[in-house]
Amino acid sequence: MTTISIIGAGNMATAIGARAAQHGHSIEIIGRNPAKAKAAADYIGHGATVGTFGARPAGDIVFVAVLYQHAVEVVTQFGDALTGKILIDITNPFNSDGTGIVTTPGESVSQQIAAVAPRGTQVLKAFNTIFRDVLAEAAPLDALFAGGDSEARARFAMFLESVGIRPLDTGGLESTYVLEWAAILLMGLARNGAGWNVALSAALR
Amino acid sequence: MTTISIIGAGNMATAIGARAAQHGHSIEIIGRNPAKAKAAADYIGHGATVGTFGARPAGDIVFVAVLYQHAVEVVTQFGDALTGKILIDITNPFNSDGTGIVTTPGESVSQQIAAVAPRGTQVLKAFNTIFRDVLAEAAPLDALFAGGDSEARARFAMFLESVGIRPLDTGGLESTYVLEWAAILLMGLARNGAGWNVALSAALR
Repeated sequence: MTTISIIGAGNMATAIGARAAQHGHSIEIIGRNPAKAKAAADYIGHGATVGTFGARPAGDIVFVAVLYQHAVEVVTQFGDALTGKILIDITNPFNSDGTGIVTTPGESVSQQIAAVAPRGTQVLKAFNTIFRDVLAEAAPLDALFAGGDSEARARFAMFLESVGIRPLDTGGLESTYVLEWAAILLMGLARNGAGWNVALSAALR
Repeated sequence: MTTISIIGAGNMATAIGARAAQHGHSIEIIGRNPAKAKAAADYIGHGATVGTFGARPAGDIVFVAVLYQHAVEVVTQFGDALTGKILIDITNPFNSDGTGIVTTPGESVSQQIAAVAPRGTQVLKAFNTIFRDVLAEAAPLDALFAGGDSEARARFAMFLESVGIRPLDTGGLESTYVLEWAAILLMGLARNGAGWNVALSAALR
């Protein structure tokens, strides 16, 4: 078990934190608004703490759980404090009606984050194909992820397994753009009969 | 049970035909090359027949199981013979190294097919997120699909259920572009540890 840092204090931040805490990890919530971060940590419980915005996070794995419009700015603000970390971008750069994405190939949010992150930082994308309520459940689950080098992906896969999630590696940083489209697929499922308690998955034979 | 027509005589055509035949449907294979079509029908067995290229297919559901480069041309050649049919586009417009697609939003292969198909024809996309060997198996499976109107999608969902596949409706014709990206996600999975016996799926709670 290890410390997991989460930048952000919204619904996805608390879902990730709650699931990880339930599986024995220590959680650090880092928010620009200390009161909101404290409320998120209290919601998560299990001794979750509040970190200082802009300071070096305690965890080796750091979730960037803010809106996509703020992700690059936040990572820029942390700057060298993130050196060597594995950053997990969970954002979805949806267009205004959620039928497409505003990014372009080679310029996914993860790739934009990687462009401003300090040297040696690994940027992955995950959890953007799982709705919050499904992620928050303790039940076994699949998570598609991409980004970083193979060592970082193996490290993140170990974390996923530790919280009851089957890791589904879909490739390097260039594949994060594909995952951004995958979230639109998830939205299509939700809107056409599957409802909002759904996550993308894979059948392996 | 009903008649399913398949334009094409390649690996995906025989996989679709074999699965549908095993579940009691009558299969008509339609190929430009009659000898190749005959071989595909023989492979499928269960009384599968060979149709005439360009003539009206016997089935209400017609799979367009040709390479994406030929799909629009083939549908154009059939022309009014396809009036009122439910066309199922299974193509994947991959770029040369299979890391992206050559189509653009609003111009998916399915949308290009719909633009040349006769009035009243419904164009859906399916089976492009399932590798051939997985589709050919009798085992239960998920299939993401999109396109057409809700009536056509309901009709196709009934067909899927009849062949042991859980239908996952992801939306109308505009969503077929999202499915084209989904196949790149599938490729990423295959190349990064999952191997080629894999299909996209969904966890529904």
